[in-house]
Amino acid sequence: MHQEDHFQSSDLVRDIVIGMADGLTVPFALAAGLSGAVDSPHIIIIAGIAEIAAGSIAMGLGGFLSGRTDVEHYRSEEAREYYEVEHFPDKERQEVKEIFAGYGINEEVQDKIVDELSKDKKQYVDFMMRYELGLEPPSANRARNSALTIGASYIVGGLIPLLPYVFCSSVHTGLFVSAGVTLLALLGFGYIKSKVTGQPPIQGALYTMFIGALAAGAAFLIASAFQKIK
Amino acid sequence: MHQEDHFQSSDLVRDIVIGMADGLTVPFALAAGLSGAVDSPHIIIIAGIAEIAAGSIAMGLGGFLSGRTDVEHYRSEEAREYYEVEHFPDKERQEVKEIFAGYGINEEVQDKIVDELSKDKKQYVDFMMRYELGLEPPSANRARNSALTIGASYIVGGLIPLLPYVFCSSVHTGLFVSAGVTLLALLGFGYIKSKVTGQPPIQGALYTMFIGALAAGAAFLIASAFQKIK
Repeated sequence: MHQEDHFQSSDLVRDIVIGMADGLTVPFALAAGLSGAVDSPHIIIIAGIAEIAAGSIAMGLGGFLSGRTDVEHYRSEEAREYYEVEHFPDKERQEVKEIFAGYGINEEVQDKIVDELSKDKKQYVDFMMRYELGLEPPSANRARNSALTIGASYIVGGLIPLLPYVFCSSVHTGLFVSAGVTLLALLGFGYIKSKVTGQPPIQGALYTMFIGALAAGAAFLIASAFQKIK
Repeated sequence: MHQEDHFQSSDLVRDIVIGMADGLTVPFALAAGLSGAVDSPHIIIIAGIAEIAAGSIAMGLGGFLSGRTDVEHYRSEEAREYYEVEHFPDKERQEVKEIFAGYGINEEVQDKIVDELSKDKKQYVDFMMRYELGLEPPSANRARNSALTIGASYIVGGLIPLLPYVFCSSVHTGLFVSAGVTLLALLGFGYIKSKVTGQPPIQGALYTMFIGALAAGAAFLIASAFQKIK
């Protein structure tokens, strides 16, 4: 029970950190890019807010709908396996045996495994869903909550690079403060993100900051170049 | 051999379509949002280009680096399993038996399975990687190619909603043409995307278009509101 709680809270932390790290990157890079092309902080703020609205909806709603589709897909595959177990037991038997044959298990043991598994139809289908089709039972609420948490965190993360433009009178100062604050934030969120997703944290922190810096630098250069062409 | 080819080409098509569908959504919504707040197509085009640069780098490079991290993670877990099989064979034996105990297989058959599996150390570790840890062997090239394809397709997809602003003299006409072209493109890409990812295509097409329309509508309303406040 305690472990279950721990796991749930980790999922929440992971979603928040993923949403924030992503939200920091693109609005930051967009604002930096525009800083190379326009001289009004006002336009940068409006563009940033439009991006945050667009990105959080695309990310949150996209995740929510794809979570729903996963649930439907799982249910339809499950219904098909139940149907096949009922109507084509020999074919299903052969399919499960082949999984074990692939790991060098002899035919006698293969038959014993299937005999045991098929005693309980639910267990048999659960086994096939996971080990033959590689599908985990998706949780409908989990996908929805996760998508909404990521979307909301994207908004919060996106405001971090934008706020300096609100409080600085020139685009130049805004860009300077925004870059400093955001690269530090990316470093921190990259660290936490890697910790909670079980990856090397220092490397993850540097990768996350590097992606943000490169995206912002490229957007700045490209927008400046286009500004000069027109 | 023929099936392998088919699978490879599907992966490529899937990556192109995912990148394009995502690339269509956010730049489209950003341009629509800015249309509610600024009256210069020039600024919308520069913001759109900065967004496409930022988004494609974040998506492509992010996917590439996370693919590399997956490979490293797989290798380190694999090394650990080899070590444990060597030094704690009883513990590993118990762990594999528990997988099958969870599906109602009796102890005698559990022991037979482990006896067979453990005859070949590589097979034994491969089995644990997949069925105990749920890890698939990641392909380093595959992840890199996939990330680059998605990033490049994001750029192409992002140009579709922007081009109307280049060819229309007013923001109002640009928005009108951009919305028409992009919503049709989202419908088409959503259809193909669902087909190649094995999901219901009509539903997927409508979902994809709906997300784009909602993101663009929200960005437009929010940017217009902020324009009035300032």
